[in-house]
Amino acid sequence: MTDDHTATDHAAPGYSDDKVAVLKRLKRIEGQVRGLTRMVEDDTYCIDVLTQVSATTKALEAVALKLLDEHLAHCVVNAARAGGAEADLKVKEASQAIARLVRS
Amino acid sequence: MTDDHTATDHAAPGYSDDKVAVLKRLKRIEGQVRGLTRMVEDDTYCIDVLTQVSATTKALEAVALKLLDEHLAHCVVNAARAGGAEADLKVKEASQAIARLVRS
Amino acid sequence: MTDDHTATDHAAPGYSDDKVAVLKRLKRIEGQVRGLTRMVEDDTYCIDVLTQVSATTKALEAVALKLLDEHLAHCVVNAARAGGAEADLKVKEASQAIARLVRS
Amino acid sequence: MTDDHTATDHAAPGYSDDKVAVLKRLKRIEGQVRGLTRMVEDDTYCIDVLTQVSATTKALEAVALKLLDEHLAHCVVNAARAGGAEADLKVKEASQAIARLVRS
Repeated sequence: MTDDHTATDHAAPGYSDDKVAVLKRLKRIEGQVRGLTRMVEDDTYCIDVLTQVSATTKALEAVALKLLDEHLAHCVVNAARAGGAEADLKVKEASQAIARLVRS
Repeated sequence: MTDDHTATDHAAPGYSDDKVAVLKRLKRIEGQVRGLTRMVEDDTYCIDVLTQVSATTKALEAVALKLLDEHLAHCVVNAARAGGAEADLKVKEASQAIARLVRS
Repeated sequence: MTDDHTATDHAAPGYSDDKVAVLKRLKRIEGQVRGLTRMVEDDTYCIDVLTQVSATTKALEAVALKLLDEHLAHCVVNAARAGGAEADLKVKEASQAIARLVRS
Repeated sequence: MTDDHTATDHAAPGYSDDKVAVLKRLKRIEGQVRGLTRMVEDDTYCIDVLTQVSATTKALEAVALKLLDEHLAHCVVNAARAGGAEADLKVKEASQAIARLVRS
């Protein structure tokens, strides 16, 4: 991250709240994955394990959507304002990330 | 579409190429769905029907990703340049559309 | 379809109801895809087209899940009863179809 | 696990290999999620975090598909052989788990 970014952070203190929220979600997802390990170790009924896998996948997707929303609102919007090749690059990059998410 | 949009089209003639390409893809998808109907009518083996459903879903997703990429490159970038509430609205709208795609 | 299958149909007349229901859904999906073509031709706002694409994708997925459920309930269950290599083959085939659906 | 199940394991020793393989994958996924936490803490570029989220989601899906395949091959096939309401229940349960996966 560049100085420029740090400057943006000062202007938009909401960013660190978002970061704290994302970290909290990831901590919970880590716990869900550890829970899956315990379930498999304990020979939990397969369908119950699968329900938990679906919940964990959904939680990961929610993190991705949150990160993507912030990325559009900050990086892409800033690049669009700056204009030129940087704007095109950021849009292309975002589109590719969205394609990976949709296909995963 | 407003006059403003027409003006943009003149500036970026690539847009109509994209439109022609999207319409061609949709025509092909319509044919795929009609093919599915024939397969079910003919009692085609279920797994073969499912393979064709997956291919059709992937083709629809590809159309969505193409439309989204153009939307980011045109509407969102233009709104970001214009700035203000319109930029925020466009980003929010795009994020919600992405969420619907990821979850569909 | 073999005589054997026809016999099963007699025992379970619900099967043709399922077929009629699937064909009805596919007809509706074909209409949704034609609606998408009209939306793009009329330069409908991109986000509204995307909402309709997501709805169409969900409708296709619902058809896939219905077909898969019937496939498990009939073909896989019958193969399991018959036993041997056929049962293994049907399970492998079903798992691969599920993987294609999850990834599409 | 009941004695009954242990008996099955003896007949099909491949089962415990599968369990070891699933546990190994889950351990790796737990590491991927911890990696995501570090990336966010270090303010890693958003698109790179998203790439890693997609990879983690795909890894979780692969675990789900593996568990589902084993479930069909063992529980569903055995229930189909036993027949009756149990077979119907297992198929319904499996179909619902598949639907959750496809939609997650």
